[in-house]
Amino acid sequence: MTRLEDLPIRDELRGKKPYGAPQLDVPVRLNTNENPYPAPDRLVQRLTADIAAVARDLNRYPDRDAVRLRTELARYLSDTTGHVVTYEQVWAANGSNEVLQQLLQAFGGPGRVALGFEPSYSMHPIISRGTGTAWVGARRAADFTLPAEAAVAAIEEHRPDVVFLCSPNNPTATALPRETVVAVYEAAQRVKPSLVVVDEAYAEFSHHPSLLPLLDGRPNLVVTRTMSKAFGAAGVRLGYLAADPAVVEALLLVRLPYHLSTVTQVTALAALACRDELLENVEAIKRERDRVVAELGAMGLEVVPSDANFVLFGRFPDQAVTWRALLDHGVLVRDVGLPGWLRVTAGTEAENDAFLDALRTVLKENRA
Amino acid sequence: MTRLEDLPIRDELRGKKPYGAPQLDVPVRLNTNENPYPAPDRLVQRLTADIAAVARDLNRYPDRDAVRLRTELARYLSDTTGHVVTYEQVWAANGSNEVLQQLLQAFGGPGRVALGFEPSYSMHPIISRGTGTAWVGARRAADFTLPAEAAVAAIEEHRPDVVFLCSPNNPTATALPRETVVAVYEAAQRVKPSLVVVDEAYAEFSHHPSLLPLLDGRPNLVVTRTMSKAFGAAGVRLGYLAADPAVVEALLLVRLPYHLSTVTQVTALAALACRDELLENVEAIKRERDRVVAELGAMGLEVVPSDANFVLFGRFPDQAVTWRALLDHGVLVRDVGLPGWLRVTAGTEAENDAFLDALRTVLKENRA
Repeated sequence: MTRLEDLPIRDELRGKKPYGAPQLDVPVRLNTNENPYPAPDRLVQRLTADIAAVARDLNRYPDRDAVRLRTELARYLSDTTGHVVTYEQVWAANGSNEVLQQLLQAFGGPGRVALGFEPSYSMHPIISRGTGTAWVGARRAADFTLPAEAAVAAIEEHRPDVVFLCSPNNPTATALPRETVVAVYEAAQRVKPSLVVVDEAYAEFSHHPSLLPLLDGRPNLVVTRTMSKAFGAAGVRLGYLAADPAVVEALLLVRLPYHLSTVTQVTALAALACRDELLENVEAIKRERDRVVAELGAMGLEVVPSDANFVLFGRFPDQAVTWRALLDHGVLVRDVGLPGWLRVTAGTEAENDAFLDALRTVLKENRA
Repeated sequence: MTRLEDLPIRDELRGKKPYGAPQLDVPVRLNTNENPYPAPDRLVQRLTADIAAVARDLNRYPDRDAVRLRTELARYLSDTTGHVVTYEQVWAANGSNEVLQQLLQAFGGPGRVALGFEPSYSMHPIISRGTGTAWVGARRAADFTLPAEAAVAAIEEHRPDVVFLCSPNNPTATALPRETVVAVYEAAQRVKPSLVVVDEAYAEFSHHPSLLPLLDGRPNLVVTRTMSKAFGAAGVRLGYLAADPAVVEALLLVRLPYHLSTVTQVTALAALACRDELLENVEAIKRERDRVVAELGAMGLEVVPSDANFVLFGRFPDQAVTWRALLDHGVLVRDVGLPGWLRVTAGTEAENDAFLDALRTVLKENRA
């Protein structure tokens, strides 16, 4: 039998394990920041009808540039942020991971450097490696905030070509002040100039407004989004971004042609058409998120203030032990590899109750 | 207004144009090797029902490893080639372009070299560039065949890390003898060892059997396939490969997690469930392809023997003029940038008649 290490794979992949949270079939899954609400009936009906309408023509390639979908995404961003963008400013791909990969293929790559502020989205260094981009992981403060001076100093020291900011940040759930993003952008332009990517995957859950209006007059700024969270469409795999139209032109040079299938375009359009119903659930999730934060605090735990649909809490002598104990009670949370901390997704009221009850039991049993 | 050249994009992208054939709305589209037959009623019904069944759960991420889909793809390959493969040997992604990109991310990349024999699939050098892999375009013979000795000599000269072979080859439609693939594989192992990728996107249309049985005892050999052509599922974007299970393990290290959406997995499974009906059309396409070859020959044109669902024909003093003249008659074929030659996809009988009539008129008008 051939072993992986016998193959002529790249040296930096040797000894690596595949990325991914365990996909376990347990009663309460609060580990991947999914939206807990199933698709409403109206979306199911609409999607079924729309798929039936396009199915006969699946022998043809999809619209390579997904113009209708990008137009509707632009409309959604314009309506919900008050900052008008057009389809020429919007790009979409199979999940925001593919959007990030395309950005690094165009603006990062061999001989270039990407910088992020850790702990943050763990795919950033992996996608950097996958595109031959050197990765610099600067650090957030001990309380997981990102002071503007520290961020600017890191940029001046490392001179990155691409800077990743996440607001709200995963896994800490912390949002960035507008002023920090502006300071980072200005430093990044002064030094190089370089591309600044603000990952707003969780923007709809934030107490703060979107950073989208910062795009005005900042051609090297990108704001990324996803339909996986607020839209409850993780199974659709649709990530997107807004930026200067020239950035979108750059991505056309690296995107794989016909990267977005007809079924993906149709499914995302159906979800956008049902956005009012889908976004109602966001309010319920925010209320539940705030309740989870309060109840964890009442247990005497440390809780990071959350602007996302998840909560980082601790600290535990060994978070892997607590993770296992919760799983034994049928509740799956995420061990993000941050010593002492665990991350829990805000689920339905019943799911959150189950999680909080399990955690109380675990604490009582001294298994945490 | 910001222009593309004002942005900090990679130097090798400067001045480049996006890949892609014109997507024009004309009566007869024979330019992208699509299958001309729309999805049969049974597939439309099954797909609609299957989408309805999963739609409510679209708030959840898809099966990250697409095990059921890979199992059915393995069954299809085993049944149609007589060479048994299991799901551990099969990998799938959003189009064979993404499969090729993942292969280059794991086995190519910065400091490594990919080699192909041109004219061939024009995405190979583009995906190489997108992954930081150096590209060497060796040449086929004047008649577009690939003599084994020439292929071996190119490998010995350039010492590639990844070798691309296409059989049948796009855009020439020529298949490779089994012995040539074996000679290339042996040379590539002797020199480095390196990965040999046999692109069989058009295998179902060939007069020759699949090269899949060559996988036995060759851990650095990969055979790629697509559902875009024989399955008539270009709108689904599903490419796949068969190889040693260790190759699949390597791809797990570079694939973006959850890269295949739930709707893509469900749609591809529905098409596989209807494969008997879908593959019936392959026989009709092959008959039409052979007729187009014969009729073009009868017009006194040069025609490359075809094992695919398209035909390369010429030669014209300026193929761009002939391309334009055919378009004026409502027939869209492909100018693949090969001086003197044009490529036409085998469509339905009516589409091929329209193409042949238009070409006869164009030849009579002396516009070719």
